[in-house]
Amino acid sequence: MTPTFSRVIDLEQPRFPGMPVHPSHKPGYFYALHRRHSDATGTPRTSAAGMLTMMEHTGTHIDALSHQAAYGCLHGNVPAHTVESPAGFAQHGVEQIPPLVRRAVLADLAPLPPRYEFTADDLERALGPVRPNAGDILLVRTGFDQLWHDEAAYLDAAGAHKSATLWAADHQVAAVGADNMAWDVPGITDPESGVTLFAHFYLLPQCGIYIIENLKLDELAATGVRECTFVCLPLKLTGATGSPVRPVALL
Amino acid sequence: MTPTFSRVIDLEQPRFPGMPVHPSHKPGYFYALHRRHSDATGTPRTSAAGMLTMMEHTGTHIDALSHQAAYGCLHGNVPAHTVESPAGFAQHGVEQIPPLVRRAVLADLAPLPPRYEFTADDLERALGPVRPNAGDILLVRTGFDQLWHDEAAYLDAAGAHKSATLWAADHQVAAVGADNMAWDVPGITDPESGVTLFAHFYLLPQCGIYIIENLKLDELAATGVRECTFVCLPLKLTGATGSPVRPVALL
Amino acid sequence: MTPTFSRVIDLEQPRFPGMPVHPSHKPGYFYALHRRHSDATGTPRTSAAGMLTMMEHTGTHIDALSHQAAYGCLHGNVPAHTVESPAGFAQHGVEQIPPLVRRAVLADLAPLPPRYEFTADDLERALGPVRPNAGDILLVRTGFDQLWHDEAAYLDAAGAHKSATLWAADHQVAAVGADNMAWDVPGITDPESGVTLFAHFYLLPQCGIYIIENLKLDELAATGVRECTFVCLPLKLTGATGSPVRPVALL
Amino acid sequence: MTPTFSRVIDLEQPRFPGMPVHPSHKPGYFYALHRRHSDATGTPRTSAAGMLTMMEHTGTHIDALSHQAAYGCLHGNVPAHTVESPAGFAQHGVEQIPPLVRRAVLADLAPLPPRYEFTADDLERALGPVRPNAGDILLVRTGFDQLWHDEAAYLDAAGAHKSATLWAADHQVAAVGADNMAWDVPGITDPESGVTLFAHFYLLPQCGIYIIENLKLDELAATGVRECTFVCLPLKLTGATGSPVRPVALL
Repeated sequence: MTPTFSRVIDLEQPRFPGMPVHPSHKPGYFYALHRRHSDATGTPRTSAAGMLTMMEHTGTHIDALSHQAAYGCLHGNVPAHTVESPAGFAQHGVEQIPPLVRRAVLADLAPLPPRYEFTADDLERALGPVRPNAGDILLVRTGFDQLWHDEAAYLDAAGAHKSATLWAADHQVAAVGADNMAWDVPGITDPESGVTLFAHFYLLPQCGIYIIENLKLDELAATGVRECTFVCLPLKLTGATGSPVRPVALL
Repeated sequence: MTPTFSRVIDLEQPRFPGMPVHPSHKPGYFYALHRRHSDATGTPRTSAAGMLTMMEHTGTHIDALSHQAAYGCLHGNVPAHTVESPAGFAQHGVEQIPPLVRRAVLADLAPLPPRYEFTADDLERALGPVRPNAGDILLVRTGFDQLWHDEAAYLDAAGAHKSATLWAADHQVAAVGADNMAWDVPGITDPESGVTLFAHFYLLPQCGIYIIENLKLDELAATGVRECTFVCLPLKLTGATGSPVRPVALL
Repeated sequence: MTPTFSRVIDLEQPRFPGMPVHPSHKPGYFYALHRRHSDATGTPRTSAAGMLTMMEHTGTHIDALSHQAAYGCLHGNVPAHTVESPAGFAQHGVEQIPPLVRRAVLADLAPLPPRYEFTADDLERALGPVRPNAGDILLVRTGFDQLWHDEAAYLDAAGAHKSATLWAADHQVAAVGADNMAWDVPGITDPESGVTLFAHFYLLPQCGIYIIENLKLDELAATGVRECTFVCLPLKLTGATGSPVRPVALL
Repeated sequence: MTPTFSRVIDLEQPRFPGMPVHPSHKPGYFYALHRRHSDATGTPRTSAAGMLTMMEHTGTHIDALSHQAAYGCLHGNVPAHTVESPAGFAQHGVEQIPPLVRRAVLADLAPLPPRYEFTADDLERALGPVRPNAGDILLVRTGFDQLWHDEAAYLDAAGAHKSATLWAADHQVAAVGADNMAWDVPGITDPESGVTLFAHFYLLPQCGIYIIENLKLDELAATGVRECTFVCLPLKLTGATGSPVRPVALL
């Protein structure tokens, strides 16, 4: 019953208007506080509340399998057009991601140069003898989590080389995650398939592996651990293609 | 390292337009899928994504300390007007709630009649010898989680009598949570203070105890346990007065 | 230079959360005032401002030609899928509607019973010797503008019989408008084409005739005129399928 | 009955994500098309529709009297705090602006240099013998309407010197309008009152004169006229502090 951990490390970046947002997901995030304590109520108790407007792929978030299709199909060869509607997806919506409470392994590669593509070899070197098992989470730190307050620099982050993505898939992880916008380095075309964002093409629709983006991994990396229990609890936003999350590591 | 639990139980209600929403938080929740796989891209990879419009107090969520004030002050005697702005709160915003990974105790009172106020005695009877310790989470099941698809019936749920709220505070829990809209029964005035929603007046601004609302507790209750490890990870929505969450119980 | 009118009559219903909204366009309309004069600025001037969340087909509004397709095509045989994107329509977006400053004729049929379908004969009887010319606006009053504060009753309004819609098209009007939600009576199937909302099927994609909905025509009708100058200025919401408007009649 | 004009000139800038927005009103404007013609309906008629998220002070718009206060009061010495609520203003909301169908005079000063403050003398020189009468609209062209697709350059536009604002008030116009973001030049402090945006301080709360912003005046100016009939029809957004508008000039 007593949980066997001594420390909870927060892996979420703070959310605020002006945080880095991928151009496809602009305007991204806005919060307006409209109900105020200063509104007269005539009683000693007052309330305040606001309104969120946000794309689901902003801030620290997880991509649902419906977010990407390969050759017109979602994971499991589900033709995308048969399940998409104005209200979202009838299959592979983010509400179908179970709570993720899994072993994670962390490859700390920081600091990497801008737009560097980290490889499978980079991962193995950083992990030493540690390897992910099937169903685990693979976390990679590029060091760009330090630039969360500088959108232009952050969008220029390092990301996964195709070999790293294939390596993750070979290890049958449940999800990959990094401290950058897209796991992939945007704008690089895979010569074989002709697509950009190769992992978005391969992991989500072809392998059924989730991608977690904009993680804050500095504090976890500073502990020196390469393994932890990772907890990520996507909101059941019915039909949506992703969810904001606040993952934590339990040590 | 290996987590010592054998089961993860989801405590979040599904989110969809039309789910029960407190009148103060209408229109509540909306998701629009605007980016579609059917949009031609000329490559084998396609994307879909949408936009969320939601009040932070919809669905399963946690109230931040900034949500309520007593006599004009937030918790710790912070005058509310000194910290509230259009962008939210400079103190006691929901981003200041740490990840909650705590022991929880569950009092299963279901099924309770509509608008029944459960008392401290009810809690003690249901808990048997189990008591919450300081820093624990107190969960109470009314049975109204079964009515999540029927707004009118759900809004008429049972909730906490003042004695139950005081009992929770006496046990110095970190948070209370129930399978109803407000922990309290809306519309009942506390004769002493003259306020409605007594727990919102007492727990948040006066005790610094969080309130978790719209939990789904049926599956946890069905296990028969009265204790578990509870994990609730509020999003760091800077300045906001609450956050949607997907709490889980680890058994 | 001096305009030759003596009176300006407002034809817009007020906009507020809770006004009648067609189920397809829920949640419809919301305004949140988040910037307040009470926010300290340190100078004698203060500002207030808010945020609108709204479907473009709420309140008094005009339908753009992109709003409806017949057999997959927008007006002019433009295949809808070739011009629709997440950002809206590359052709027949509402920004392509010119400012409408035209002669209008008003057929005052009020009060009509719920779900009554007014016919071409009804229009001719009400108009007496007056007829719309090509390019004019045809306005019809059902009397349901009086029920704008009662969504259920308003959604049950009278509307156009197919014969009235064909009559309008035969007269080559630029637009039709009524004091109801949809010009048509929702839920009635045209036996020939098999569609509901016949005018939406015929006028917009087939004839290029706009539909103006939720007009407030009581004050204009009370003057007894059957002709006026009508001014309707749709916002240039690039790519959108409609626009809120505040039409006026100049007498 | 026949309107006595021969030409309708559109004075609205197009609305699109990325159009210039004052920093106080970010993120400004977004439209998401979520309902698509491609969604299967089984009948020959299909619909498309979307969702607007916008601040009321974006694009071509009019400021309501509730937008600004002087010394804590709205126009007519209404204490702002007595009429502001989460839903907007109980007095001086934009729904209280009548349809504006008025004579306008146009002072064409284009091209002015960035941040130039045009004076009362500049206006008189440009207007020649023409003067606004009480209740008229004063339009001023700076030439910055040409830079609507370049936010940085547009935000650096010329605007009104205090003398021009006082001149407008002396002539008792109903509204002023210009082809810039704020009529005023942002960032300039009036030494007497200590406020920035002097016209926002003086015209709205003290004189009850509306301000129309982000007009497109090039086509009107190209006609060479200095007088026209101006039509501006603010939406009745109950309680809001402004409204998007599509003004036109009738010649």
